[in-house]
Amino acid sequence: MTLYIVGIGPGSKEYLTQIAIEVVKNSEVVIGSQRAIDLFSNLNETIVFNVKDLQEKLELSVDLAIGGKDICVLSTGDPGFSGILKPILKIAKEKNLNKDNIEVIPGISSLQLAAAKNRISWDNTNIMTFHGRENIKDILKIIDNGSTTISLPSKSVKDMAKFLLDNGVDPKREIGICERLSYDDERILKTTLKDVANNEFSYMCVMIIFK
Amino acid sequence: MTLYIVGIGPGSKEYLTQIAIEVVKNSEVVIGSQRAIDLFSNLNETIVFNVKDLQEKLELSVDLAIGGKDICVLSTGDPGFSGILKPILKIAKEKNLNKDNIEVIPGISSLQLAAAKNRISWDNTNIMTFHGRENIKDILKIIDNGSTTISLPSKSVKDMAKFLLDNGVDPKREIGICERLSYDDERILKTTLKDVANNEFSYMCVMIIFK
Repeated sequence: MTLYIVGIGPGSKEYLTQIAIEVVKNSEVVIGSQRAIDLFSNLNETIVFNVKDLQEKLELSVDLAIGGKDICVLSTGDPGFSGILKPILKIAKEKNLNKDNIEVIPGISSLQLAAAKNRISWDNTNIMTFHGRENIKDILKIIDNGSTTISLPSKSVKDMAKFLLDNGVDPKREIGICERLSYDDERILKTTLKDVANNEFSYMCVMIIFK
Repeated sequence: MTLYIVGIGPGSKEYLTQIAIEVVKNSEVVIGSQRAIDLFSNLNETIVFNVKDLQEKLELSVDLAIGGKDICVLSTGDPGFSGILKPILKIAKEKNLNKDNIEVIPGISSLQLAAAKNRISWDNTNIMTFHGRENIKDILKIIDNGSTTISLPSKSVKDMAKFLLDNGVDPKREIGICERLSYDDERILKTTLKDVANNEFSYMCVMIIFK
């Protein structure tokens, strides 16, 4: 009756940790996106979620743990960085699942891989995540504080670039785009803010705003 | 002639990624602390560094890469978070090793495991690293900003706790200590600032100052 929340890293198998593989293999039920479940083989029962039924499936995971099963929910990146730890804790509280029955396995976040690919030390960068949030204006307060900013955009990087241009950020500002990190068609490029606003990129992007 | 800087995670084998294992196995020379090298088996040539000769061995790693070898330097945690990426980049610049010959493999930082063990989402916490730095005063500016602070202390957590008490932080402030993370004798505890100042802990600790 442990609910494991397991970070699977940015997407490719290469970034799975030994402990993630072990925990997933031993869980009675594994819940995750199809893309996440496909990283593993020889699983016991699996339950797939998608954007539409995510909340419902997370509730189910808590119910199954309360019912006495060892459950594992797969989270892209690190569950504790813009991942599913937060919504699961909320559900667990509502359903009175004891916190001690929840175990979090960290994973490599796409922010870490973006920093690595650009050889940036992220201990003194601004780190901002806008996944599913309406706090986009917060970025304007910090992008000129002398540090590089690594952000997980809310919608698309194009949308983000337009927002920054509309708010007076220099069109020539140097931007790094890390597209489809860890996949075979990964692209790492450096360009200008104006260029990002005028082009299309995958929805799977990390955006770096250089200092 | 690639210089790989590989994150090995907090210490136990469990947190190694598949890519880290693969890169290390294929390197002609592996340079790291004895503790890091012991995580792997069947390596080609190995060179051990310790605190005293770290700089010298990092310089050697750059020289070997310039000489045409595939070298791998092992970094505890994530090389980009309070890791050895920064000193290696400095040496590479001095010795004119092209940046394109440096590849960074991210790893799980102890900050991530500390957050996971305490079921904290670290995307809106203060993250501070004081490893080998004299910026300890910076923590006073942020510990009362409404967010939990996760810190990698400079010397010992006892020393850090005394510093906070001397600077007027409430002795009853709730503190989390994560000692020897990922090892068999790992300890995760919640206590007060006063208690931390009055006790001894391992030098391998992450300190959480709850909001």
